[in-house]
Amino acid sequence: MSSSEVQFSEQNSKPAAKPLKRKAPAPDAEMHQRTLRLSCEETTQALYVVGTELKVNVSRSAPPRSKYFSVRCSPAVQYRISPPPPPQTDDTLPPLLTPKSTILISMDGASEFANDSKMSVKYYGEKTDVLGKAVVLLTAVEISLDVDADRDGVVEKNNPNKGSWKWGPNGHGAILLVNCDSESISKKKQDSESEEISKVSDLQDMSRMVLRTSGPAQLPEGYQLTLHISQSNAESVRVFRSRVQSHSQLKKLIFKNFIKDYPLVLSKAVLSQKVPYEGGTAETTFFVEGLRFPDKDFDGLITINLSLLEPASKGFPETPIFTDKVVFRMAPWIMTPNTLDPVEVFVCSTADNYQFLKGIRKLVQRCGCKLRVCHEYMNRGDRWMQDEVEFGYIDSPHHSFPVVLDSPRDGYLQDFPYEELLGPDFGYVTREAWNEEVSSLDSFGNLEVSPPVTVNGKNYPLGRIIIGVAFPTAAHGRNMTKVVQDFLWAQKVQDPIALFSDWLCVGHVDEFMTFVPAPDRKGFRLLLASPDAGYKLFQGLQQDGHGQATLFEGLADQEQITVDDILSNQQLREENNYVQGCIDWNRDVLKRELGLEDEDIIDLPILFKVEKENRAVAFYPDMVNMIVLGKNLGIPKPFGPQVNGRCALEAEMCSLMGELGLSCTFIDDFTSYHKLLGEVHCGSNVRRAPFPYKWWNLEL
Amino acid sequence: MSSSEVQFSEQNSKPAAKPLKRKAPAPDAEMHQRTLRLSCEETTQALYVVGTELKVNVSRSAPPRSKYFSVRCSPAVQYRISPPPPPQTDDTLPPLLTPKSTILISMDGASEFANDSKMSVKYYGEKTDVLGKAVVLLTAVEISLDVDADRDGVVEKNNPNKGSWKWGPNGHGAILLVNCDSESISKKKQDSESEEISKVSDLQDMSRMVLRTSGPAQLPEGYQLTLHISQSNAESVRVFRSRVQSHSQLKKLIFKNFIKDYPLVLSKAVLSQKVPYEGGTAETTFFVEGLRFPDKDFDGLITINLSLLEPASKGFPETPIFTDKVVFRMAPWIMTPNTLDPVEVFVCSTADNYQFLKGIRKLVQRCGCKLRVCHEYMNRGDRWMQDEVEFGYIDSPHHSFPVVLDSPRDGYLQDFPYEELLGPDFGYVTREAWNEEVSSLDSFGNLEVSPPVTVNGKNYPLGRIIIGVAFPTAAHGRNMTKVVQDFLWAQKVQDPIALFSDWLCVGHVDEFMTFVPAPDRKGFRLLLASPDAGYKLFQGLQQDGHGQATLFEGLADQEQITVDDILSNQQLREENNYVQGCIDWNRDVLKRELGLEDEDIIDLPILFKVEKENRAVAFYPDMVNMIVLGKNLGIPKPFGPQVNGRCALEAEMCSLMGELGLSCTFIDDFTSYHKLLGEVHCGSNVRRAPFPYKWWNLEL
Repeated sequence: MSSSEVQFSEQNSKPAAKPLKRKAPAPDAEMHQRTLRLSCEETTQALYVVGTELKVNVSRSAPPRSKYFSVRCSPAVQYRISPPPPPQTDDTLPPLLTPKSTILISMDGASEFANDSKMSVKYYGEKTDVLGKAVVLLTAVEISLDVDADRDGVVEKNNPNKGSWKWGPNGHGAILLVNCDSESISKKKQDSESEEISKVSDLQDMSRMVLRTSGPAQLPEGYQLTLHISQSNAESVRVFRSRVQSHSQLKKLIFKNFIKDYPLVLSKAVLSQKVPYEGGTAETTFFVEGLRFPDKDFDGLITINLSLLEPASKGFPETPIFTDKVVFRMAPWIMTPNTLDPVEVFVCSTADNYQFLKGIRKLVQRCGCKLRVCHEYMNRGDRWMQDEVEFGYIDSPHHSFPVVLDSPRDGYLQDFPYEELLGPDFGYVTREAWNEEVSSLDSFGNLEVSPPVTVNGKNYPLGRIIIGVAFPTAAHGRNMTKVVQDFLWAQKVQDPIALFSDWLCVGHVDEFMTFVPAPDRKGFRLLLASPDAGYKLFQGLQQDGHGQATLFEGLADQEQITVDDILSNQQLREENNYVQGCIDWNRDVLKRELGLEDEDIIDLPILFKVEKENRAVAFYPDMVNMIVLGKNLGIPKPFGPQVNGRCALEAEMCSLMGELGLSCTFIDDFTSYHKLLGEVHCGSNVRRAPFPYKWWNLEL
Repeated sequence: MSSSEVQFSEQNSKPAAKPLKRKAPAPDAEMHQRTLRLSCEETTQALYVVGTELKVNVSRSAPPRSKYFSVRCSPAVQYRISPPPPPQTDDTLPPLLTPKSTILISMDGASEFANDSKMSVKYYGEKTDVLGKAVVLLTAVEISLDVDADRDGVVEKNNPNKGSWKWGPNGHGAILLVNCDSESISKKKQDSESEEISKVSDLQDMSRMVLRTSGPAQLPEGYQLTLHISQSNAESVRVFRSRVQSHSQLKKLIFKNFIKDYPLVLSKAVLSQKVPYEGGTAETTFFVEGLRFPDKDFDGLITINLSLLEPASKGFPETPIFTDKVVFRMAPWIMTPNTLDPVEVFVCSTADNYQFLKGIRKLVQRCGCKLRVCHEYMNRGDRWMQDEVEFGYIDSPHHSFPVVLDSPRDGYLQDFPYEELLGPDFGYVTREAWNEEVSSLDSFGNLEVSPPVTVNGKNYPLGRIIIGVAFPTAAHGRNMTKVVQDFLWAQKVQDPIALFSDWLCVGHVDEFMTFVPAPDRKGFRLLLASPDAGYKLFQGLQQDGHGQATLFEGLADQEQITVDDILSNQQLREENNYVQGCIDWNRDVLKRELGLEDEDIIDLPILFKVEKENRAVAFYPDMVNMIVLGKNLGIPKPFGPQVNGRCALEAEMCSLMGELGLSCTFIDDFTSYHKLLGEVHCGSNVRRAPFPYKWWNLEL
């Protein structure tokens, strides 16, 4: 016995007689097993990853005529023989070698030095003469690629579920944000467009990933750690490594050195890159940056792999002998319904909307939120703030920020979202319609979201997106572009509903519906424009002797009309019958898809008229097209019939909304919006607080 | 009371006192409700679809000051009032009208004539004076769009699950085939390429869909039935209507009339089309044709809708008032493992492969299956029959046929699959690599499938697809093109496994692995090439005194080599150590991904040598690259060392395979295949019987 074998302890030569060594790993179908080859010709070296098992087919490396074998190993090494060698009559004999004899090896903890453990197998002939001996030097390392798989904002160690993703409160899986904001205000571009990290603050938009290793100061020669991603994932993600060891060090950084402290590791151009093994017990931090929102061709899941590579002979590729993987899901873009608290109100200032602005400003002041006015140099006369953008947000356990979805509408307001909204912690996303015709239905007055609902037992705690399209049976209808629809459906967390809005000249769902908060029932009411309710109100006025009350009083350039005139106009009545039919169709869909009862719906007295191409526009300011700021509603002033010194339509609105504890402010938008086929809602937009509910808790 | 009201029966005026009418529908959250508007000004007409509910808000159409209302209806009409009117002190009074008063209407069966039922609502004032009366004429129809949702080959009536798709033996949902065969042999093109049905037999490749209606001879004026699909589904499906009423009529058809008997209804160009309402109790048969296999951008699900359109005033779009939908899943392309019975064997005839052909012919004759030889005018010297195509099939409850997947490899054999295989009930599919480099790994020797396996409790009753790629950590590896990989993954039913095959010069998984049937254990064994097993065998020979036995005896142009030469070649030994490491890596993956134990694997004594770019080729004919025809194996004749007049490698193979009851036939492929870096498997292909297991019974 050579001196190098002193540290060995004889073990388990007669497993049939003695129990297996105490710490031998239990058979486990899920355990990662790797085939290890021994050689009687040269000493083998092997790197062992704690938690796996090395499997040696003993007979493979046996010299011809071998009949028995024995195993010895250092104290840190555990092994078992499988299948257990058959009992022998002479129990001084070593275990019998069979073609199936296998040694399963494991080690409990990391090695202090490279090759500090050892196992040897001796082969014996018929007469227990030694025919050969195979020696393997073992080094144990602990390796774990870690993420925040339990979604508490902290990167825990080796979460058993880190390699998969599951929805729900009992689910698991880490989360990525699309880095769609811009840390820089001066040279504005989305952070995801740049392959460099320019500011420390940008790291907050990324998800931490930590490589934890434990082992000798250096790996045995030639072994390497490599991070890698698939080609298709590489379009959606980038990985940076941090060279910065501590937070205090990070603070001292000067801008000049910053980029080289966070080198790019993986990107579309580099799918695989070696990462340093630090030695001892070490942590290397990576920052993972999301680049793309889920879409028709991207389910949102990203896998990042860490492999341990074993050197091969010169010129041969290194072999991955252990791979750890983590899975992220890209956070979806989430819309905010009217029931969420307003944060900022956006309107345009134009040459002719002073009156409107004044009304909005007063309302916003009362609500205590912020007013942001887009000035004429930027809006170039395009006042339809609702139509160019939709405000939403993205959320993760570590960070959250608002994200504006820019419509392919691209009116004169088109530069506003990128130029004025995009900024630090304010993201931007758009979908461009390359091969599709963009219609009025692509304006985001045609994109709304319901408050949280439960439908036949299914919960939608983030509500459901609502868009307007043509009937699928229509030969020549207008629709929202497929790119935008695909984007909305792919977010998954606010399962969209398609309504029929093509019956309207402008074609937006916000022309006939909105949601307001309510203290009872489901926490909200659906408000629907209703010509029937309008006619009923006017008939009541007529019967009460107010048939000569006039609409549009006090408006220049607008012919006044009496209640009697309206009720005697058979053409108008027929047009409104048609409109009511269209709204009823949507009402049926909304009831079914949002699980609403009639008591959840309030019909507002609004008349329409039918114009070119047989499509409808509001006959007087369309009160349902309101801005909802908490309990304060900014409603288009309807200029309805004056009865006893008060507008009968306003009175009805105040009565209906008052029952819900809501306060109505009527804003004169007649000339500057209504006459241009829009109203208060079309001309404004609201950024709201995010849901307290976390999207990853959804049971999808 | 007018005479037209004679058929009416007074009902339910005092629901608080009497029970609701016997047949009134129970409240049902899932029931399709449609809002119906009444008018006191004119008689309304309404089409009612049996199984739905019409909902009338009574107060909406009430004249001002209405306080009470009463309802009368024809015997065929059932209704209930919701919420039930409050009890009144004076029970001679009709029900009290509240803003929420709703009438829910249903009818039990189809009407005999249009407008043959009626409901009227009378409105009363404070003193029960009649203020108005609204009348609605009702026509009931039964409508059901039907498919074979229970997967028994018969289109049942109105299956409650027809509108969704669920995997598994307790699942449901109809199935479509991609019509990728060609009924015509003379003017060959895939049937799905043509918008016409040219032969009656083509109907078998499509799925039947039946529109069942029951009602009056004609619908009330203006009502229409329309079939429609979404734009994205229209890329994957086409619908034809049958004008043929009976099977006997179908038989009498002459070719000339055929096309107009099966007009195209829906296609990429026509997303929505009216279909006739036949009147009485009628069935209209449609044939649904699948056009595209599932792929990365297509999950395989197809929805077809039937809507009933209500006329609107002139110029306004018709409104869909009822929609029935059916869902199909496109049948996936399924591969067939070696354990399935062979049907046809394919080989090429070339100027130099007479010997090989002779061997194959004899083997195939013994197995009783068909041999098809691709002649030189077609193969143009390209002998790699395995590499150009992969045979599979598609299956549905109504029909099944083989489908060849054509590789993007496109060697000189490229016309063979389309020109010679495509035909009646023999389909064709290919994926073209537009933006990708095609490598040797795209040949289908690199595409195999395992027999059925169970892995950690998960069943794969159709086995798992196996492909070979480069290590994901390799900087410059060759891979199978993404288009083919995406196609394979999208089929879903044979979840693929990626092995590492880039270490081979040719780079195909069939160079180091195959499956053979076995009478025990899992019903098969995995055979792996094993240099270790080869060295062991040669060392045994040497020790038994056969060191001078020579390989390659009897081969011209091939230097002979002794066992001693091989064993003393240290370079060769090192190369084979590397190769064994590569195969062991794959062995570990296969064990894990197929749930195999060592006892399920047989190591075959095969040596490799490493050539240009450090990639490996077989040192002598690669016996694992065999053709498996039931219990008969066609194995490359290894030309191994002759010991006692017998090739030691053949003897070892016969011994190993003999234990499984398999018979080995050694086929001399040395000059015409082995020297060109392929063997028997590379030079042949087998079409096999489909699985008896039905893919839709998978629990995915």
